[in-house]
Amino acid sequence: MRATLMYGAGDVRVEDVPDAGLVEPTDAVVRVTQAAVCGSDLWPYKSMEPNDNGRRMGHEFIGLVEEVGADVRTVNAGDLVVAPFLWSDGTCVFCREGLHTSCLHGGRYGDPGVDGGQGEAVRVPQADGTLVVLPVEQDDALMPSLLTLSDVMSTGHHAALAARVGPGRTVAVVGDGAVGLCGVIASRRLGAERVILLGRNPARTALGLEFGADEVVEERGEAAVERVRELTDGLGAQSVLECVGPDEAVLTAIGCARPGGAVGRVGIPEGETIPGVQQSFFANLVIAGGPAPARAYIEGLLPDVLEGKIEPGKVFDRTTDLSGVPDGYRAMNDREALKVMIEP
Amino acid sequence: MRATLMYGAGDVRVEDVPDAGLVEPTDAVVRVTQAAVCGSDLWPYKSMEPNDNGRRMGHEFIGLVEEVGADVRTVNAGDLVVAPFLWSDGTCVFCREGLHTSCLHGGRYGDPGVDGGQGEAVRVPQADGTLVVLPVEQDDALMPSLLTLSDVMSTGHHAALAARVGPGRTVAVVGDGAVGLCGVIASRRLGAERVILLGRNPARTALGLEFGADEVVEERGEAAVERVRELTDGLGAQSVLECVGPDEAVLTAIGCARPGGAVGRVGIPEGETIPGVQQSFFANLVIAGGPAPARAYIEGLLPDVLEGKIEPGKVFDRTTDLSGVPDGYRAMNDREALKVMIEP
Repeated sequence: MRATLMYGAGDVRVEDVPDAGLVEPTDAVVRVTQAAVCGSDLWPYKSMEPNDNGRRMGHEFIGLVEEVGADVRTVNAGDLVVAPFLWSDGTCVFCREGLHTSCLHGGRYGDPGVDGGQGEAVRVPQADGTLVVLPVEQDDALMPSLLTLSDVMSTGHHAALAARVGPGRTVAVVGDGAVGLCGVIASRRLGAERVILLGRNPARTALGLEFGADEVVEERGEAAVERVRELTDGLGAQSVLECVGPDEAVLTAIGCARPGGAVGRVGIPEGETIPGVQQSFFANLVIAGGPAPARAYIEGLLPDVLEGKIEPGKVFDRTTDLSGVPDGYRAMNDREALKVMIEP
Repeated sequence: MRATLMYGAGDVRVEDVPDAGLVEPTDAVVRVTQAAVCGSDLWPYKSMEPNDNGRRMGHEFIGLVEEVGADVRTVNAGDLVVAPFLWSDGTCVFCREGLHTSCLHGGRYGDPGVDGGQGEAVRVPQADGTLVVLPVEQDDALMPSLLTLSDVMSTGHHAALAARVGPGRTVAVVGDGAVGLCGVIASRRLGAERVILLGRNPARTALGLEFGADEVVEERGEAAVERVRELTDGLGAQSVLECVGPDEAVLTAIGCARPGGAVGRVGIPEGETIPGVQQSFFANLVIAGGPAPARAYIEGLLPDVLEGKIEPGKVFDRTTDLSGVPDGYRAMNDREALKVMIEP
């Protein structure tokens, strides 16, 4: 079968690999119908050391179950399923607490022996704990929005929960990438009183306004912090979603936060430390978040997607087949595309 | 009157200063009956640049109200009061949210124009918002425990709340200083299932066990983390109270925390960053806390002190008059005394 591999920074190839197949009795094989390129895929795209073996890529996908192992009970061949971006057993102490990202028996797509999502098919370990059956047909128009449940919409939702978004809260969202935009949707959905989006890409901030942001702050760094304070009676936002990752963005997020407020962080940290400790400590800020336990959120977000109440699929502004995946990476890295959907 | 001043690292003097007096109509003058030396006073004791003017010291005290300004309504001359370690108006947006440490019109004892607590009397600004009247006589045996409400017990309580301590939770307390020991009391009081105290001073850990700790971990750093994991089925503690401050202690706290757990930090940070971001991010830890809004907690903790349910006053292991304050600093800095009470 064909699948996407990365061999080093900027070096993405679509190649023949062994067909996906069952290994454990708890596995399923899923034929991918839609997949995506993730903002986090751009990190190795920028920085990966050259590697002769390549790394299988992709962790967001929807597909048809082709085959299940003998122990699989909740999904069947022919089911259309969405996969959260990590696999998990659904039964360990952390899964039972809704923290599937810390599953004691879980792991990542693309790890040795497990396929990536940017290919024709995937061996999914722990199929019962991982896959969620979708109650729609394969050609449903909602497919882009359903695909976002695997990662980007669930991640925006996680940022909002970590930032304690709720009724009456003023929210600042740092970053107008796909995660930040889904953070706007999530904040609105959780009842935020006011949502301020920090970003300067006109197409993206326009989508943010469509998703329910009340204001856009185009400034960066200290100027952005000042602008958010101006907009909030000098106090700052009670909930801040940090959807970028680098220290500059984290400092902006901390600066925008009102004393006693919360910063929900889902941007992958670059370094070894969280900056701004004096500010966050003396303001009694809560810093929370991390990788989103998408598996815990999919069933809760699904009804709103099915009813068209939220349309996170609008973050996809380009669709390609497998052959176009390398150029999809390039386009996202050049900020020419917001997020690329793959139909293998 | 006599009061304590610090002129530089290791240079504490008790000197004549102008008598405390009313300045604003919202002030009270309080004659100090008990005060304390705080762990945070040891920071300037270790590091303060020499200063010819000196800095007035002390922010934990109980005393008799001597005089109140024309606008003061809730305290009267003759009242015995406890002062939280910051003064606050009690009416601003942050005070109303219980975050008196961020009061828009508050401040610190010892700042220009405001006395310190380690002296004969204190001008207390915003007396109505700050002082809490105690329903006991001046010679009550509970005085040491009541004095801890001004800072150290309230700070331990804040650490426990920030770490989300509650029934069913396993707690690790990093640090066997007075704050850590009060964190043990607070954790027990909030219903923790199990409390593990990290410390290696035998007298202090013995007091920690008396306060309700179930286990003591004497190891430090990585070895302490390993030991806490052994004690918690390899998972870590759901709530970790960081009661020391330096990066090494913060890393220990993060290392002891179970994925999805919370670190309540009240140790004053030394540097510019929070260490261990990769670990805290990928484990979805909550990092919360800061200076304790003692004013928000005093009334809630008071009944348990009055009924003898908690005895945080046991952290005081030395009492002195004003003339002994410089040696009290030395003794605490040399870890010869745990916490010094002053009876001017």
